[in-house]
Amino acid sequence: MKRTKIVDLLSSTEYGKEVCVKGWVRTRRGSKAVNFIALNDGSTIKNIQVVADVEKFDEELLKQITTGACLSVNGTLVESEGAGQSSEIQANEIEVLGTCGADYPMQKKGQTFEYMRQHAHMRLRTNTFGAVFRIRHNMAMAVHQFFHERGFFYFHTPIITASDCEGAGQMFQVTTKNLYDLKKDEEGKIDYSDDFFGKTTSLTVSGQLEGELAATALGAIYTFGPTFRAENSNTPRHLAEFWMIEPEVAFNDIHDNMDLAEDFIKYCVRWALNNCQDDLEFLNKMVDKSLLERLNFVVDNDFVRLTYTEGIEILEQAAKEGKKQFEFPVYWGVDLASEHERYLVEEHFKKPVILTDYPKEIKAFYMKQNEDGKTVRAMDVLFPQIGEIIGGSEREESYDKLVARINELGIPMKDMWWYLDTRKFGTCPHSGFGLGFERLILFVTGMQNIRDVIPFPRTPKNAEF
Amino acid sequence: MKRTKIVDLLSSTEYGKEVCVKGWVRTRRGSKAVNFIALNDGSTIKNIQVVADVEKFDEELLKQITTGACLSVNGTLVESEGAGQSSEIQANEIEVLGTCGADYPMQKKGQTFEYMRQHAHMRLRTNTFGAVFRIRHNMAMAVHQFFHERGFFYFHTPIITASDCEGAGQMFQVTTKNLYDLKKDEEGKIDYSDDFFGKTTSLTVSGQLEGELAATALGAIYTFGPTFRAENSNTPRHLAEFWMIEPEVAFNDIHDNMDLAEDFIKYCVRWALNNCQDDLEFLNKMVDKSLLERLNFVVDNDFVRLTYTEGIEILEQAAKEGKKQFEFPVYWGVDLASEHERYLVEEHFKKPVILTDYPKEIKAFYMKQNEDGKTVRAMDVLFPQIGEIIGGSEREESYDKLVARINELGIPMKDMWWYLDTRKFGTCPHSGFGLGFERLILFVTGMQNIRDVIPFPRTPKNAEF
Repeated sequence: MKRTKIVDLLSSTEYGKEVCVKGWVRTRRGSKAVNFIALNDGSTIKNIQVVADVEKFDEELLKQITTGACLSVNGTLVESEGAGQSSEIQANEIEVLGTCGADYPMQKKGQTFEYMRQHAHMRLRTNTFGAVFRIRHNMAMAVHQFFHERGFFYFHTPIITASDCEGAGQMFQVTTKNLYDLKKDEEGKIDYSDDFFGKTTSLTVSGQLEGELAATALGAIYTFGPTFRAENSNTPRHLAEFWMIEPEVAFNDIHDNMDLAEDFIKYCVRWALNNCQDDLEFLNKMVDKSLLERLNFVVDNDFVRLTYTEGIEILEQAAKEGKKQFEFPVYWGVDLASEHERYLVEEHFKKPVILTDYPKEIKAFYMKQNEDGKTVRAMDVLFPQIGEIIGGSEREESYDKLVARINELGIPMKDMWWYLDTRKFGTCPHSGFGLGFERLILFVTGMQNIRDVIPFPRTPKNAEF
Repeated sequence: MKRTKIVDLLSSTEYGKEVCVKGWVRTRRGSKAVNFIALNDGSTIKNIQVVADVEKFDEELLKQITTGACLSVNGTLVESEGAGQSSEIQANEIEVLGTCGADYPMQKKGQTFEYMRQHAHMRLRTNTFGAVFRIRHNMAMAVHQFFHERGFFYFHTPIITASDCEGAGQMFQVTTKNLYDLKKDEEGKIDYSDDFFGKTTSLTVSGQLEGELAATALGAIYTFGPTFRAENSNTPRHLAEFWMIEPEVAFNDIHDNMDLAEDFIKYCVRWALNNCQDDLEFLNKMVDKSLLERLNFVVDNDFVRLTYTEGIEILEQAAKEGKKQFEFPVYWGVDLASEHERYLVEEHFKKPVILTDYPKEIKAFYMKQNEDGKTVRAMDVLFPQIGEIIGGSEREESYDKLVARINELGIPMKDMWWYLDTRKFGTCPHSGFGLGFERLILFVTGMQNIRDVIPFPRTPKNAEF
């Protein structure tokens, strides 16, 4: 008999129908006469209850039905008598596809998240991580659907790169050289001519620069791929390997860019609310009791937009009036700390905030220079709990201004020729931003540690699985 | 005025409306009285014609309207009088956003693909590569939509990995070690304890093993991410960095797996036929005149399914009867060469072919062992022109058989504990396959070189852009 997924059985009312269900045992309980088996197949957070009359089944078989075992059950779909349950299955045949011993690491309930991380290969079978990764899938779908509906093209920028000019962070080196036999030239420099690519290469920190090449050809593109930072940051918000989404749009100015960012995040959150109800309700109950409220709040409210300069004034005022004590000082020119961002979002405005026009010294070389000579057309989207969730800007489209800034910052020009060509041949205004995918998942799931929203986190000294 | 994309203007019949269009000049021609400017913004392969009465515009301005320049045009949408054209724009205002000099590398038409590869940052602005990368986007959408509709979850397997047990090919090493100061222990071995991850790490060759972890928890998953092979293969079909799609499904046997693979490819090809008509027609005209015919053929025909053993018999027969001379000998046990695969597909069956049950010696350790002791439940999907487009199998679910095979092959067990746990705790039958995304794009676009269907190809000695 062809199996039916549990998500479909639970919404079916074809009572009396013979069905086949397959899945893993979450619990078994019962009396001498009847056993109740809660079965889950990953298609939904909800289990289906299998009712097995003890007299119908071999004792040895029933003994094998332990937590974690894999079963195939043929039976009759019946209406459940239990409160809050929909359908259940009256078992006719049970086959144990795979037994599961007492050393099953997900045996006990209520293990810590740290324990789960050490068993990341099995945590996928728990309620919490099942919910997180079903939501993660849905957020990826929302990303693609949002951009596709708006005529953007998904663009694969390279992972291995020979350029290190974005300067977003420390990079991992990629090599095929035999480290036991490193040839060096007369000056003592390692000879990379026999490395795979004939020169030093690294893992990308951002696809933006290549994304700009595509936007100035295809009009509107987005990237969605892994990016890497070799930073020794052992915090709940940093990963060495994470997924990033970077849209880039020709002819968009910073206002279009802000509209796009706000529409985009609201679309994703709305998608979660519409498509992940069961998983969100579980997380709202078990992980973060204000989750649903916060998600609805983001969807229902306009983001506040103000300049960095205005933001600093509010923060200075708050400090001066004693409304808030900040650990780090506030002054024009400072790179805002998380406490500053969260004060604006959580206490002052009580809404998501988009800050624009930051001092050029604290932003990247490619951002469009304002006429004041001091600020650039940067924009950061700040969220409750998360802080910065999106960073972006209108890009400097003037070849001369861009080259001047590159020289000012001493960025090596040799690998930049292709990027500068966009400003040389038919340049145009354009804008884009980057969203760390895991930051979005943190926000949408209410999870607190970024290692719990990516299947197999890569962090300092940890590359298990 | 808010700009409208050219794809929308060309399908609009709101003649007389004032519109704004922005894009890059493909050509300008004209007389003393009137100029015709073909403008493209990447939203479609079609240009919109801008008609500029010479007397309305400054001579200096018109001189700047050269191939590659970027314009913003306000004008009136009018019905085109030219044959085969729809709408055009009678220009009222023209602004040159970016000029373009005679050194523009895409100036001349009819450059070779090799020339285009050297200017991969600008080839995106040409008709051919615009078409290829719009189709590439559409194929990615089709992939996500196909699996989403069927209740699969998109699963991000790690890029940086400490395991090298899949054995699919040579790997790139990932390190943060200072290669000028490599500490070694007493035995002369490099000490990796101070490397970022505290041990040697590489770029993944496949997400399958982690995908199996997810499938035996979430039920049905797929990966879609970059994979890497450090092989010194300078051929039109190999890349060092490419994107791979790997679905994995609990409870699927090899027949379900074949159905899934066939449905999947047909869905993608049908998506292209339904959503990329203009681009496909262009490629069919300019790149490969049998393209549309071949795509329709795949959608309209069932794939032939037979065993490897049956396939070998057909090939041996063909060789014996002199129907075909093969360069490489055919015998049971041989790893089929491209000429063999293409004979079956293009000459014998004249249909896509799925071969199953290969000799275990030429397939990976994790494939389910048949009872004959000689073959495994492998399946390869063979396509015209491409050869193998999909490779997959039912997986060995028996812990004991899997361990025996691993020992037989001498694969180091130390990094395999987490994989083996899937067979230890509630094992179940499951199946999956891998599709090289660029192989699919080659098939759907009719392009001949894999370097022309990924934006910035990574190949031996080449990591430009």
